[in-house]
Amino acid sequence: MSDTQFRHELAQQLRVDSVRSSTEGGSGHPTSSMSAADLMAVLLDGHLRLDYAEPDDPHNDHLVFSKGHASPLYYAMLKAAGAITDEELLSFRKLGSRLEGHPTPRIPPTDVATGSLGQGLPVAVGLALAGQRLDRLSYRVWALCGDSEMAEGSIWEAFQHAGWAGLDNLTAIVDVNRLGQTRETMLGWDLDGYAERARAFGWHAIVVDGHDLDAIESAFAEARANTGRPTVLLARTLKGRGVDAVEDKPGKHGKPLEDPETAIAELGGERNLRVDVMAPDRSAEPHRFSTAGGDLPTWQLGEQVATRKAYGEALTALGDNRGDVVALDGEVSNSTNSGLFADAHPQRYFEMFIAEQQMVAAAVGMQARGWVPFVSTFGAFLTRAYDFVRMAAVSRADLRLCGSHAGVAIGEDGPSQMALEDIAALRAVHGSVVLHPSDANQTAQLVTQMADRSGISYLRTLRGATEVRTGPDEDVHIGGSRVPRSSDNDDLTIVACGVTVGEALAAAETLAGDGINARVVDCYSIKPIDAETLISAANHTQAMITVEDHWPEGGLGDAVLSALAEQPNRPVVRKLGVREMPVSGKPDELLHAAGIDAAGITDAARELLARRVAVAAG
Amino acid sequence: MSDTQFRHELAQQLRVDSVRSSTEGGSGHPTSSMSAADLMAVLLDGHLRLDYAEPDDPHNDHLVFSKGHASPLYYAMLKAAGAITDEELLSFRKLGSRLEGHPTPRIPPTDVATGSLGQGLPVAVGLALAGQRLDRLSYRVWALCGDSEMAEGSIWEAFQHAGWAGLDNLTAIVDVNRLGQTRETMLGWDLDGYAERARAFGWHAIVVDGHDLDAIESAFAEARANTGRPTVLLARTLKGRGVDAVEDKPGKHGKPLEDPETAIAELGGERNLRVDVMAPDRSAEPHRFSTAGGDLPTWQLGEQVATRKAYGEALTALGDNRGDVVALDGEVSNSTNSGLFADAHPQRYFEMFIAEQQMVAAAVGMQARGWVPFVSTFGAFLTRAYDFVRMAAVSRADLRLCGSHAGVAIGEDGPSQMALEDIAALRAVHGSVVLHPSDANQTAQLVTQMADRSGISYLRTLRGATEVRTGPDEDVHIGGSRVPRSSDNDDLTIVACGVTVGEALAAAETLAGDGINARVVDCYSIKPIDAETLISAANHTQAMITVEDHWPEGGLGDAVLSALAEQPNRPVVRKLGVREMPVSGKPDELLHAAGIDAAGITDAARELLARRVAVAAG
Repeated sequence: MSDTQFRHELAQQLRVDSVRSSTEGGSGHPTSSMSAADLMAVLLDGHLRLDYAEPDDPHNDHLVFSKGHASPLYYAMLKAAGAITDEELLSFRKLGSRLEGHPTPRIPPTDVATGSLGQGLPVAVGLALAGQRLDRLSYRVWALCGDSEMAEGSIWEAFQHAGWAGLDNLTAIVDVNRLGQTRETMLGWDLDGYAERARAFGWHAIVVDGHDLDAIESAFAEARANTGRPTVLLARTLKGRGVDAVEDKPGKHGKPLEDPETAIAELGGERNLRVDVMAPDRSAEPHRFSTAGGDLPTWQLGEQVATRKAYGEALTALGDNRGDVVALDGEVSNSTNSGLFADAHPQRYFEMFIAEQQMVAAAVGMQARGWVPFVSTFGAFLTRAYDFVRMAAVSRADLRLCGSHAGVAIGEDGPSQMALEDIAALRAVHGSVVLHPSDANQTAQLVTQMADRSGISYLRTLRGATEVRTGPDEDVHIGGSRVPRSSDNDDLTIVACGVTVGEALAAAETLAGDGINARVVDCYSIKPIDAETLISAANHTQAMITVEDHWPEGGLGDAVLSALAEQPNRPVVRKLGVREMPVSGKPDELLHAAGIDAAGITDAARELLARRVAVAAG
Repeated sequence: MSDTQFRHELAQQLRVDSVRSSTEGGSGHPTSSMSAADLMAVLLDGHLRLDYAEPDDPHNDHLVFSKGHASPLYYAMLKAAGAITDEELLSFRKLGSRLEGHPTPRIPPTDVATGSLGQGLPVAVGLALAGQRLDRLSYRVWALCGDSEMAEGSIWEAFQHAGWAGLDNLTAIVDVNRLGQTRETMLGWDLDGYAERARAFGWHAIVVDGHDLDAIESAFAEARANTGRPTVLLARTLKGRGVDAVEDKPGKHGKPLEDPETAIAELGGERNLRVDVMAPDRSAEPHRFSTAGGDLPTWQLGEQVATRKAYGEALTALGDNRGDVVALDGEVSNSTNSGLFADAHPQRYFEMFIAEQQMVAAAVGMQARGWVPFVSTFGAFLTRAYDFVRMAAVSRADLRLCGSHAGVAIGEDGPSQMALEDIAALRAVHGSVVLHPSDANQTAQLVTQMADRSGISYLRTLRGATEVRTGPDEDVHIGGSRVPRSSDNDDLTIVACGVTVGEALAAAETLAGDGINARVVDCYSIKPIDAETLISAANHTQAMITVEDHWPEGGLGDAVLSALAEQPNRPVVRKLGVREMPVSGKPDELLHAAGIDAAGITDAARELLARRVAVAAG
């Protein structure tokens, strides 16, 4: 059997197996799989260098199915490569199977979860950046994209960054089958239109008949030989290729074939070909950065330091101690202070420009290769990449995010620049950690701990300086809190975080003049939260105030209420937060206007305790 | 004074006023304003048709400052047009001033807030779509973009959609001053590189010297004469143009000039020119769609209907009754069922393809023109546009969002397609409404009410069918709830929403066999929440369970706890939600695995009440 004959048989097997698994699973996307089967057959047999038996080998190529709904094709490739059995193939979409509706890292060698369109290619850019600048290995990164997802802006962020960075280790393969879920795509089969766009973004573009195996072979060879630029194969294909009942027909998206037996017969029946996938190039070892070592920065009690500055200094020191730490920023590194890391460790700093989706995706790609990325921008602008953070959780990614410029305390720049929903958004990410230190020493310790933690962690930093109240040697840990003020007979607990800790302490001082004893909890770890300290406070005080520079929904207040929800004895809790749309003004003016400064806390405390007394007297 | 001389003087005035306001405000972006001053001087004097005295005139042109940080320039234009006084100009960034750090609709005729880069152009696309397809007026839409924001994928979504739709009423003006916040942009002054990209996306591109007033005049005239395609002016400019201390110098971003007096002198001193801005073309009246009228759909008790289907039918009926209602979808209209509206009202349906950011931005643009847009996609994919929703709130936009395919109940497709953080994310949007009906009749009534409500409202719908339990004439309202089961001596309250309402009722039935009386609250309005009903339940039952198909953070459970926070008497509350990363499986299998089905609720109830008894006995 010639190469071309074998590949034809292999492609037909991939189609048949896509039909079989989606039929057995009762749902899925066989037609979106069939269009790309010839492309993937040639890739698997002759271009991909991946040891499926050693999925963690750092020398492996990476294959990202950006069109994650073509999972039947992906799993059919795994079977053909010997990574799964036919029996497992048929477990598609069933409870307990590793073969989920869209690929996840539960099934090796899958690096990341896909299924939210437009994310696979940006992640592939991250893997390619890791290959080029971090691992410095010759592995290639291949991304199979759908044509519908070319409408996502994140795809063009990826084209832009890869073109700018000259990632010639990256190949995108666009399966232009023309038909989306409900209709034709904007460009249809205008392959030249796609090519023009790709070239304008600095890519080498090859237009190819996606069902001509020899043409595909030449195109992949050209992609591998091409230097200085990434390559995109724009492949004209037919959705449902090979089965007359569905081929190039609308209305056949995302459902099993109606007559799978006829379809399988039309495709030449079941096969059990096995591909001898090329071994990776193991000639070099992954690059490792040497480190000089050094101490974590500390600050003296009473110093005035912005936590964003402490972030930059701590991250830089972490980079001195660990060669695996890398930093990415969205062109605001002099605001987030990741610029300090960039100055100290330029080889491990990635300027991602103002493209937050690509920034997060790049970090996801890098962590899939074992690097420890810290990603920073304004907290407000992390919302731009929220879907990417959501999917990073599905990818079981270890990702550290830092959002600066929290809340109304930034002042004059106004609400567009104020992170006011970030705590809520990041709390609602599976397995996440949400940290909001009130001073520099807390920040430095938490940054260090984030590096060791798996899953997604988020650090929220402040624009303005706050007083250092935590001693350099004090215990600060994820899940912990600090109680800067308490007594044996406290009337009230004030739970604060970040900028509101200082306000809470000032309020407590004022209240002491009224004869009210207020305990203050600095809840620098919002998720996980220090339930023990909060429960103790709840048991010892008759009222509680939470105060945060954030909308009242989903933030510190809700986290505290949740920690106390099952307690039999609970004080009344008043949530203070930002309740009106803020405007521009001075930081202290805006904290005051929102009622989250010392005066606002004091007023709330008095009102709450007076009501308690009234209730008791009544 | 010739036109060119006048425009030169005007441009210098815009620069001087940018320096003055940012100096007076103590912060801001004068250098980013100065680069675009010549462009805006020519636009204001000769091309913009906008009656600043009648900012609500539907015939007005629209000017969107996509580079919102150039607000000093924008406000200087307002002064030159006579819309504000010099005194107000100098109130820039001060508390109480309408002139915030970044423009907001607080200062007419500003349509939308900008300041999160890459959003203004997509909103301008929405305004242009409104002009072309809805209002059918000849107004033009102008968007001033920065070159740094060209890195945002959303900009390319805008280029793509505008090119596809042939929006020749749209002109983008890119101020290519080369310098970002910390460094040169990816393309620097490669104007042809930008032009190539724009042309590949179907635009007419004009490269121009952004400081040559006659060349700018010609370019704008060309843009206005161009038909069939949108136009982009790619203007080569110098950041800080006109002041030697800052012109084309790095490190001068986002701060007042160090020596404003010398700068003002160098610019020729203060001026007080007034521009006679062209009046709009008032020759036609805005188009209004005629409607046939018709009844809101209703369903019989006991029917099995998916709420996503009810959404589509209700929206279609709403369109029958109101000519101002329009719908947008992200190429999943046969899943969200907005396709029913598209079939009935094709002129008012906008296919936005898989570009959720552009979709939300287009809706924001349309509502700025008084239309009533409903935006739909999978709830999971609305996260893609979270920053746009956040900014829509700053824009005081009236926006209706529908997210389908909520939670693990979608089943086989897996976690990438499951909305599990949407309630938390949308609750944390200022002034938002979050609705999650459990049946078709609730859905239809809520859809109707969303149309009348200002601000941002979010409706969460289910993939699978649920039983109709709400009568067609029953009261359903934003802020309301339903109590499908209660008695005078309830032991327990179960608060549910969406798919978990049926599970809660089944659990209550099982618990009744144990002699436990459970009240069930169908909390279809999560924000605002029906505090009165919840407080009454809290006062009458010893324990409460909240159960939602959502992560435990920021959703229904937190909303209920928040509603009860200040109550003196509160039962213990157990929050049930999705606590492990879901996988693929059948809907009932996944509800069970998450512990949010009837069995999970029953177990939790027994455990909670046994503990209460033990505590009481102890």
